[in-house]
Amino acid sequence: MSTPTRVPPRGDRRAGIVAAALELFADKGYLATTMDDIGRAVAMRGPSLYKHVASKQDLLVEIMERSIATVLRDHRIAVESTDDVREQLRRAVEAHVRFHARHRLEAFVGTRELRHLDEANRAVMLSLRKDYESGFRELVERGVAQGRFRVGSVKLAVYSILDMGVGVAVWFREGGEFSVDEVAYHYGDQALRLLGAD
Amino acid sequence: MSTPTRVPPRGDRRAGIVAAALELFADKGYLATTMDDIGRAVAMRGPSLYKHVASKQDLLVEIMERSIATVLRDHRIAVESTDDVREQLRRAVEAHVRFHARHRLEAFVGTRELRHLDEANRAVMLSLRKDYESGFRELVERGVAQGRFRVGSVKLAVYSILDMGVGVAVWFREGGEFSVDEVAYHYGDQALRLLGAD
Repeated sequence: MSTPTRVPPRGDRRAGIVAAALELFADKGYLATTMDDIGRAVAMRGPSLYKHVASKQDLLVEIMERSIATVLRDHRIAVESTDDVREQLRRAVEAHVRFHARHRLEAFVGTRELRHLDEANRAVMLSLRKDYESGFRELVERGVAQGRFRVGSVKLAVYSILDMGVGVAVWFREGGEFSVDEVAYHYGDQALRLLGAD
Repeated sequence: MSTPTRVPPRGDRRAGIVAAALELFADKGYLATTMDDIGRAVAMRGPSLYKHVASKQDLLVEIMERSIATVLRDHRIAVESTDDVREQLRRAVEAHVRFHARHRLEAFVGTRELRHLDEANRAVMLSLRKDYESGFRELVERGVAQGRFRVGSVKLAVYSILDMGVGVAVWFREGGEFSVDEVAYHYGDQALRLLGAD
């Protein structure tokens, strides 16, 4: 049997381009990155590059949409995994921390380059980010209503818990002092303390 | 008596240039900002601009040095204001939050553009940032040693508290739902809870 010559399918090619764009956006910033830079990184010239992606904006949108879809899915899984609001909150924080430890560049670009999305794209992205935040707010409100949490301000508690996790993307290093699990467990505990959980 | 014509002193001129650079760095990023952009923002041409500042890098260094000097000073004042470690920690967190609410652009540029400092400048800046972090670590360690705080990991607790505050620079809006004081007080309380303070 002859082995057919391996031609990378379209999807693979595009994934490679997105990965290269992510590195460049993280390193130089979206504005300072050109389609030529991205082409050079994947050894493709303009015309063939444009067969796979329409524009730099499309690449930014794809990076951000994939990230928010991932955290929204992981949040839903955490919340659906139990009926106990304390455990739901703990697992949601762990999922949040795991994402930020494992997708550092996506987290960095996702926050820094929001302003460089076209208006319509930005509106969609802000709305999805709001949904994510609302998920945490509903958990904390439910915990307060059930007498399980005690907080000074639900909104500020949620901002704090989310920002603690976002910070992980800045300092975390694979193979460093802490494993992803360790950070996730500690941050889950810290969030529950911050919420005055029973 | 004749009023002398008001010529802006050299310091004022430079302050205006630094302020314009800060806005441009925050908006477009350091790499995408040119000295021409900065000149246009302050209505100065190349030659006169270069009488006040030697380079774009100098402006970035000045912005970052001023920020770190401010937070280090405010931290020292907070710690020297009392002998009680719980109050020291609370005031240090409040000072951290106040800075990030009031200097949103500086905080944003300070983190995002660290990579664009020249090597020697970056080494100095990273060392000053380490000093700031160490100040918090010493407070938490002392609190733990005195049996006033209980934490799973001093390092992760400090990262969390600092990152909560850094996040304020992202979402805070002057004249919005919360005043700077409100945020500072809530974050001080939250930090103490996270530390399991007595």
